[in-house]
Amino acid sequence: MKLICKQSDLANALNIVQKAISSKTTLPILTGVLLEAKNGSLKLTGNDLSIGIEKSIEAEISEEGTTVVSSRIFGDFIRKLPNDKVELTMENNKLSIECFKSHIDLVTYDAIEYPELPQVVESNAFKINKMLLKNMIKQTIFATSQDETRPILTGSYIELLNEKISMVAIDGFRVAIRTSKLNTPIESKIVVPAKTLNEINKILGSSEDNEQIEVFITDKNILFKIDDIKIVSRLLEGEYVKYSQMIPNEFKTKIEINTADLLNGIERVSLLSREGKNNSIKLSIKENLLEISSNVEIGMANDEIPLKLDGNTLDIGFNPKYLIDVLKVIESDIIYMEFLANISPCIIRPQNNDNYTYLVLPVRIPNS
Amino acid sequence: MKLICKQSDLANALNIVQKAISSKTTLPILTGVLLEAKNGSLKLTGNDLSIGIEKSIEAEISEEGTTVVSSRIFGDFIRKLPNDKVELTMENNKLSIECFKSHIDLVTYDAIEYPELPQVVESNAFKINKMLLKNMIKQTIFATSQDETRPILTGSYIELLNEKISMVAIDGFRVAIRTSKLNTPIESKIVVPAKTLNEINKILGSSEDNEQIEVFITDKNILFKIDDIKIVSRLLEGEYVKYSQMIPNEFKTKIEINTADLLNGIERVSLLSREGKNNSIKLSIKENLLEISSNVEIGMANDEIPLKLDGNTLDIGFNPKYLIDVLKVIESDIIYMEFLANISPCIIRPQNNDNYTYLVLPVRIPNS
Repeated sequence: MKLICKQSDLANALNIVQKAISSKTTLPILTGVLLEAKNGSLKLTGNDLSIGIEKSIEAEISEEGTTVVSSRIFGDFIRKLPNDKVELTMENNKLSIECFKSHIDLVTYDAIEYPELPQVVESNAFKINKMLLKNMIKQTIFATSQDETRPILTGSYIELLNEKISMVAIDGFRVAIRTSKLNTPIESKIVVPAKTLNEINKILGSSEDNEQIEVFITDKNILFKIDDIKIVSRLLEGEYVKYSQMIPNEFKTKIEINTADLLNGIERVSLLSREGKNNSIKLSIKENLLEISSNVEIGMANDEIPLKLDGNTLDIGFNPKYLIDVLKVIESDIIYMEFLANISPCIIRPQNNDNYTYLVLPVRIPNS
Repeated sequence: MKLICKQSDLANALNIVQKAISSKTTLPILTGVLLEAKNGSLKLTGNDLSIGIEKSIEAEISEEGTTVVSSRIFGDFIRKLPNDKVELTMENNKLSIECFKSHIDLVTYDAIEYPELPQVVESNAFKINKMLLKNMIKQTIFATSQDETRPILTGSYIELLNEKISMVAIDGFRVAIRTSKLNTPIESKIVVPAKTLNEINKILGSSEDNEQIEVFITDKNILFKIDDIKIVSRLLEGEYVKYSQMIPNEFKTKIEINTADLLNGIERVSLLSREGKNNSIKLSIKENLLEISSNVEIGMANDEIPLKLDGNTLDIGFNPKYLIDVLKVIESDIIYMEFLANISPCIIRPQNNDNYTYLVLPVRIPNS
């Protein structure tokens, strides 16, 4: 292998593929980045066996070849170089990197031993707008479970059906459902690891918004094509929870309330509830206002926010984190909250459209 | 105690005095902030027995009084409030805080039990420009020792003598000396804990530069007056190291080199040296260039930088951190480095003035 490429291209590509490279791995070669020089381009690959990311950059290749080199040192060194031409040369199993007056030789791994990314046949495909995918992920991913005893809940459920896409996350205490119209030729039900969606969101965050990305689905894997980046991830296996049955279709109390005021009030009151034993806050829904309160050993806090009430008054307790999470991502100045009783789930929806539903379980009201 | 003040004033004052409040303390009252309402102002105090910080803000006081309240919750709550009027009221040993529709009651400590700050007689004083003090701290503090077995070296030595101020830090491997002309009426030799200077630098960082601050010195303490902030710190006791004898006054090799190029080169090469066992780099001073290199198990790196040589060529090894630290803070595009031999200290000075001297010990050259 012998080639010349631009430092900025190489640094940028490394930043992306390194998202799939873990420093904690039992297979040392996976701490490396796979370099493949062929047909006028240098392809970089990172792979942690759950997610793999590939990106190609332009290169003047005078000798084709492949190798694997420590991703951390290679990445750190490339990023420290001036924005100039970088020359990569393989010689005696060492990768030599030259740029201006800087030089490094690094030991390499044999590329033959690098695990191949799963092959995804590019047939079962749909397209989605980048901004839409980013929003769908942001509004649901926080509700995926961290608990590995039910692995299926550590992913987000994605359903393509009847010209609609749904993304769903459930962690046992709450459900987040984001839907959108989508003109898709295929139908599909899959569960994608939250880690994959998280990395995709980071990659989407640094690219132009108003473009489509392509998504390909097989039995075991999913492939995202974002510009010239390929992200392959395994899917989670198993049956997803029947979430639609969980959403109540009636209420006895419904309020209309300002999202930012509610978020600020809960954040203030929860500063104190955190100091208590059960970390919960109480919402007291009255005729014209919501009182948020917390009463713990070292003090008591309360906040009042105006609301419009439809139905009965109610006192109900919540883990404040489960409300703060959703209030930070819901895209509506005003929200609706619906309740049946103080032992039944609460439903939160944006006022301005019906593409988002959040369900959260209450907790026993503190000190009552 | 009953008073009204502005949320922004209170939040700002808390940010400052909290720098002297530690969450880890054997005396629980020290996790609190002392509030004293008197003569139209509210004074806030934080104190960890090593450093104490006071700041007063305007307040409409309808009832004077003092109390101590948990600094963390009080601070977090005040910062989350809207920029409005805040009312503080003491009742039944609880501090009640009201702002718009938000309310919190916090348990308090008895202010009688709060340890008083050391009284510093405001007589033995000098004045110094904020920007100058900030620079002097920045250019020396990194060379103070972290090692508590020689406590005196965990502080910076400050000497006022012959219309000159010197600040010196030594950690056993290096010496940083910053001097400046200063018209001061007093002479003094003191050692100030690095932690104090660190907090002062943070406070100076957020204030206007071109003003003077006042410094008062007693046998055991030092008092800094920065705008309306008072910072009192204990001094370290004991004899400081005779540092001036350490600086060699001759050289056999002297080079003139670009500061930024040298910093970048050392940073790149040290990426690799970090992976090695002794974490050192080699500088090879040749007729017209400096070669920086590292040779470890997983590879080798080198960088070349042009230089002007006066004297002999030389190969010498260093811990790269000790060079990187000084190259980041030295304020000169070009520096001089002076050497006697590869087992003698190296001296680094800015080209553009003589207010800074840095001494660093070499290490055995790796692989030679």
